[in-house]
Amino acid sequence: MRPVAILGIGQTQVDEHWEKSLREIGGEAIFAAMNDAGLEKADALYVGNMLSPLVNGQNQLGTFFSDWAGLWHKEAVKVEAACGSGAAAFRAALMAVASGEVEVAIALGVEKMTDKSGRDVTAALATAADADYEVEQGVSFVGLNALIMRRYMYEYGWKHADFAPFSINAHANAVHNPYARLRESITLEQFEKSAMVATPINLLDASPIGDGAAAAVLVPAEKVNALPGRPRVLVTGSASATDTIAVHSRRDPLFLSAAYQSARRAYQMAGVGADEIDVFELHDAFSIMSALSLEACGFAERGQGPRLGLEDQIRVGGRIPVCTRGGLKARGHPVGATGMYQIVEVVQQLRGECGPTQVDGARIGMAQNIGGSGATILTHILAVG
Amino acid sequence: MRPVAILGIGQTQVDEHWEKSLREIGGEAIFAAMNDAGLEKADALYVGNMLSPLVNGQNQLGTFFSDWAGLWHKEAVKVEAACGSGAAAFRAALMAVASGEVEVAIALGVEKMTDKSGRDVTAALATAADADYEVEQGVSFVGLNALIMRRYMYEYGWKHADFAPFSINAHANAVHNPYARLRESITLEQFEKSAMVATPINLLDASPIGDGAAAAVLVPAEKVNALPGRPRVLVTGSASATDTIAVHSRRDPLFLSAAYQSARRAYQMAGVGADEIDVFELHDAFSIMSALSLEACGFAERGQGPRLGLEDQIRVGGRIPVCTRGGLKARGHPVGATGMYQIVEVVQQLRGECGPTQVDGARIGMAQNIGGSGATILTHILAVG
Repeated sequence: MRPVAILGIGQTQVDEHWEKSLREIGGEAIFAAMNDAGLEKADALYVGNMLSPLVNGQNQLGTFFSDWAGLWHKEAVKVEAACGSGAAAFRAALMAVASGEVEVAIALGVEKMTDKSGRDVTAALATAADADYEVEQGVSFVGLNALIMRRYMYEYGWKHADFAPFSINAHANAVHNPYARLRESITLEQFEKSAMVATPINLLDASPIGDGAAAAVLVPAEKVNALPGRPRVLVTGSASATDTIAVHSRRDPLFLSAAYQSARRAYQMAGVGADEIDVFELHDAFSIMSALSLEACGFAERGQGPRLGLEDQIRVGGRIPVCTRGGLKARGHPVGATGMYQIVEVVQQLRGECGPTQVDGARIGMAQNIGGSGATILTHILAVG
Repeated sequence: MRPVAILGIGQTQVDEHWEKSLREIGGEAIFAAMNDAGLEKADALYVGNMLSPLVNGQNQLGTFFSDWAGLWHKEAVKVEAACGSGAAAFRAALMAVASGEVEVAIALGVEKMTDKSGRDVTAALATAADADYEVEQGVSFVGLNALIMRRYMYEYGWKHADFAPFSINAHANAVHNPYARLRESITLEQFEKSAMVATPINLLDASPIGDGAAAAVLVPAEKVNALPGRPRVLVTGSASATDTIAVHSRRDPLFLSAAYQSARRAYQMAGVGADEIDVFELHDAFSIMSALSLEACGFAERGQGPRLGLEDQIRVGGRIPVCTRGGLKARGHPVGATGMYQIVEVVQQLRGECGPTQVDGARIGMAQNIGGSGATILTHILAVG
């Protein structure tokens, strides 16, 4: 397969965009990415989205957006892997260009989910879990994560406040990201006093949903030159791995084996190890997921993920900066779009465009996107090259 | 890209499978295909499905089925292109193997849609159309096709009975397909007296929905040998093309330009022309679509599709046999699965497994799968080689 570069990126602010349609939000990101790439057309469009049939009454989003973007007669398709849909679309676009089938591919992650009530959206999000064996028992998506967090705290002896640094770091970084939904810092006291959602997960352990879209333009690396002040960003690692869809079916529900597998393969493909990653956009849908992701990807020992936060290693300047643009927690989690926000943010870091939250000299970045409660996990490694 | 072969196929009967779950139906097809291929594992699974979030309350079908099939830690994803989802999954699997990323890929098309009321399913199917500009006006999916058919009859001077041969041929062939939903022949008189659905489309112009799944195992061609009595089936052409999602946005709503584009590219890739196709599994969701597909793919002049039926050219033994296993009309149309049924049926023809509806000496077959009212169209060419 031939090397692939990311030529352009685009994103909309994550927010409640009641004044804009699904079409307009996705279009904004596509046009921004094409503009950033300096291109007016593309050969194919891969759209990541989870909820549009349920929330927007719209299927066939590939063609829906290729039509809106003027890409008539081109290839277009939607890919879905619950909250991992964004990275799944990126991987589909990557394969299309890497294989030689397509010269210019656009990957779009898009979600417009605030048009419905919280109750409806909670029910829609539950479709990521096992309908027969999890949802049928009445457990919600946050409920599943709460069960995992409770067990983790019990097994490894952590108290709730030990998870605070993940959320505090995400919020602190989001202040400097104009595309973030929650641009406000939080304190430990706020974290501890926040309203309970599903014990032990409170409001500041959980990421907010939102409407948003992010996109990237992928082309063969050989067609891209580094520009003054803008390095060439290559996709050096990509892997997708799955686990059982139901949490209770796992031999060890406290280990993200799909994260381990996809990170392992991505490291191998990129020829790097965890210690060479300069920045890591991880999938902090809930604070417990930050800990589990860091452990599965080799940044912490089993059960020791929270220590990285407590020891200040996850901030910009630390050993492994995470959620440098706010993460799911504060940039926001428009579910099917999130994976593409992560990719766009890693590109921003490698280009040196992150202002106060720029990781000095970042040359290798990683993004990990999770569908379901650890069921589908995609890891991508990008590098200046 | 490297050449790819289809090593195994599997399918379930299209029917109202109230006694089986979504999981069981899809699993049946996967296991049948793996058994047919003589393999016990695979590297990746690509699932085509349209309605599971709406009808089954289940998303993330890639992982849902890889879990059920015991493909833990493997890659899995769902692709969706409305009724074109099956072929879109096949194309994703094809790209994965052709690119060298994957050695053994399974493509599954699956749909379980009869658990809900006809009213609910009609609303769910409408998500294939443009929610803002078509569905909002109250037009259903069959309504859109009825508008196209009415205009076509007016423009080219055909009467309703001229479309009868498409349905009569499909039903006659389905009699010999144990996997078909409607295994009964129909007469011209029945066709003319059938109950009206959306004028001019009556019940025998329209394909029945159903529950079903079909799957194929794809591997590098170099790893497959022809067996005694079972030729090697290669994928020689594959293309996907889109049109505007809304019918009213098209310059010419009576020409399937996405079918023309995807067929043109598939012919080019396969190095064949329309006159070399021995069998064509087309997307006869409604009889009008048979006519439009035949015209766009070069088998008939503009406006002359019905003539092929009236002149007996679409039957087995005719110039271009279509729907040899019953087509959508009589095999049934489990929407996200249909594209994979078509692929499986073309493989059966090339293997010579079709009994009374076998096309003698078939060596090159084509399958065309349509999402929406001509919005996303995928064409595949398979050949003995």
